[in-house]
Amino acid sequence: MNLKTKIEYFTTPLYLESGRILEPYQIAYETYGKINSDASNVVLICHALSGSHHAAGQYPNERKVGWWDGLIGSGKAIDTDRYFVISTNVIGSCFGSTSPMSDNYPSNKPYRLKFPVLTIKDMIKAQKQLLSNLGIYKLKAIVGASMGGMQALQFAVDYPNFSEKIISLAATYATQPWTIGFNKVAIEAIRRDPRFENGNYEKDAFVENGLDGLAIGRVAGHISYLSPSSMDDKFGRNYVNNDGLFELFGRYEVERYMEYNTDNFSKLFDPMSYLYIVKAINTFNLSRGYDSLYEAILRIKAEVTLISFRSDYLFFPSEMAHISKMMKRNEQKQTYHEIDSDYGHDSFLVELDKFDDIIKEALDK
Amino acid sequence: MNLKTKIEYFTTPLYLESGRILEPYQIAYETYGKINSDASNVVLICHALSGSHHAAGQYPNERKVGWWDGLIGSGKAIDTDRYFVISTNVIGSCFGSTSPMSDNYPSNKPYRLKFPVLTIKDMIKAQKQLLSNLGIYKLKAIVGASMGGMQALQFAVDYPNFSEKIISLAATYATQPWTIGFNKVAIEAIRRDPRFENGNYEKDAFVENGLDGLAIGRVAGHISYLSPSSMDDKFGRNYVNNDGLFELFGRYEVERYMEYNTDNFSKLFDPMSYLYIVKAINTFNLSRGYDSLYEAILRIKAEVTLISFRSDYLFFPSEMAHISKMMKRNEQKQTYHEIDSDYGHDSFLVELDKFDDIIKEALDK
Repeated sequence: MNLKTKIEYFTTPLYLESGRILEPYQIAYETYGKINSDASNVVLICHALSGSHHAAGQYPNERKVGWWDGLIGSGKAIDTDRYFVISTNVIGSCFGSTSPMSDNYPSNKPYRLKFPVLTIKDMIKAQKQLLSNLGIYKLKAIVGASMGGMQALQFAVDYPNFSEKIISLAATYATQPWTIGFNKVAIEAIRRDPRFENGNYEKDAFVENGLDGLAIGRVAGHISYLSPSSMDDKFGRNYVNNDGLFELFGRYEVERYMEYNTDNFSKLFDPMSYLYIVKAINTFNLSRGYDSLYEAILRIKAEVTLISFRSDYLFFPSEMAHISKMMKRNEQKQTYHEIDSDYGHDSFLVELDKFDDIIKEALDK
Repeated sequence: MNLKTKIEYFTTPLYLESGRILEPYQIAYETYGKINSDASNVVLICHALSGSHHAAGQYPNERKVGWWDGLIGSGKAIDTDRYFVISTNVIGSCFGSTSPMSDNYPSNKPYRLKFPVLTIKDMIKAQKQLLSNLGIYKLKAIVGASMGGMQALQFAVDYPNFSEKIISLAATYATQPWTIGFNKVAIEAIRRDPRFENGNYEKDAFVENGLDGLAIGRVAGHISYLSPSSMDDKFGRNYVNNDGLFELFGRYEVERYMEYNTDNFSKLFDPMSYLYIVKAINTFNLSRGYDSLYEAILRIKAEVTLISFRSDYLFFPSEMAHISKMMKRNEQKQTYHEIDSDYGHDSFLVELDKFDDIIKEALDK
């Protein structure tokens, strides 16, 4: 793949759900595969909280492949020999799209906490604008997991004729208080960190030493991405070698895992973007703007594939099953798959072989 | 009740599981009811992480009654007309027993991070010493929940002939990585808080403005004390009136609940005690010091009553059921009760009417 991050600039305003306006703005994205003559083979990929547009392939200077590289590529479930795949960075995120740390024209200073609150609805509106600019007015499919799965569902409700198929994994119809609670740890930890300076930190301030508040919030995140049984399998009660059991700050393996992952993450991810994206996740509610959840879901015309993971402790299978039941009652086209995976919410990133066939079949049939 | 916090001082060393020594030390406790002539009616109460010896009754200057007041008193499940009830503050805690902020003799300066790591085994050893000093060499029963339930079980294993009955609620046989993960949030948030000063803060430094790190850790705690369904019932997706939905720091009700509780808590509880007690919870493992869990449990001679809550997301019912199964196989005296409560781990504090009969029967029969 000839990998490249492309940036699309927009000078027309984006009217946000809050009543505020984002103008100008930009969206970073990658594409894989080739568009066919009638542009009927386009698949849109939507990322999760900490993800980016870099879903597949590998840059020469990077150690890691894209976050769904196992799923997207030549001969893979989302087959780039067959589909033209577009993966965008959501607005608000810190990987190239307009975010709270972007310059606020005409002042040429970062928005910081003056950045408008964004919602999942706003994110997909911006994505749709990007597709328009690229001359794409109809999609074969939208595929996303977690926050990406929310975007896929929101697309299906807000723009019923836009995508033929929707594949949503490990998401929900509305974020529940349990998940809002986990996000609260990050919100409070970031806000209360003195180095956050109420959003007035310097750009790149945390590249060397990540923000503690974000690292702490991320510890709570990692609890919710795993599950009791996946932690048992992965770590058990193993203690870190050389860390004394009777040292106050001696660690279990599960603690080392969290330290390692969260400290790294806090150097890579902008804490303000984290706050804004978490806000979008918290406020996600398919029914907002419609008379009821029933009315919202009734609008869906796409073929919907819902995939949840039995061990998901962040977005429980029952939440996806709820959408499935409503659609079934309305005789809308849907299939629901509950995957038996032990990796908790993270399953969508880890156990691709448990669901890649489902995605392939949903796309190709 | 003529309520009074009593303090017992010990000048003989307490030999700790770590090999270190605590000397001298003190234990704060309360008693309710009267001891009978042959001292055969003594019930020991063990508290949880954030609890204290103040389990029942109400002090004139306080707004709240003791944390298990609904269970302990005249005519209640743990009937103080019948039993002499002793409730102690665990060593390491900040409510009167020796803790990291106690003066380290002969220096007369607080131990701070030089305080020895304590375990559940150490806590009960100290309690047993207190009982000896009071002339009590045999108990009718030990009752505790959460960390208190761990103490009750550890008593049964370490001192098989000491208590006739053991009633353990919402506990486990060994703390699992899921719970250690939740505790990790508090450990990291406290450690990284600049005002914690690596333990060198002034006594009472956080009375006015609680330590943020402890408040943040406690947010994670409150997630684990509730459950998805209890949060749905209690808060749903309700938004705080007057907090704008599109304000970045606008809050859902679940967030307000957490802010309120955690900020208050961080003014009342010493963060160093929190670290030490969390360490004791993390290292709890009934099998440590014995050949196996099986061997440890085989030692138990007391009649054991195990109570778990179906919605407990911190110590899952399966963990208590595991103990029950082992005891059953060995034909040891035990009963296991899985209570259908929607309050998660907090059920042991909230829904007393769901299990007070079980405790009463277990005690009185």
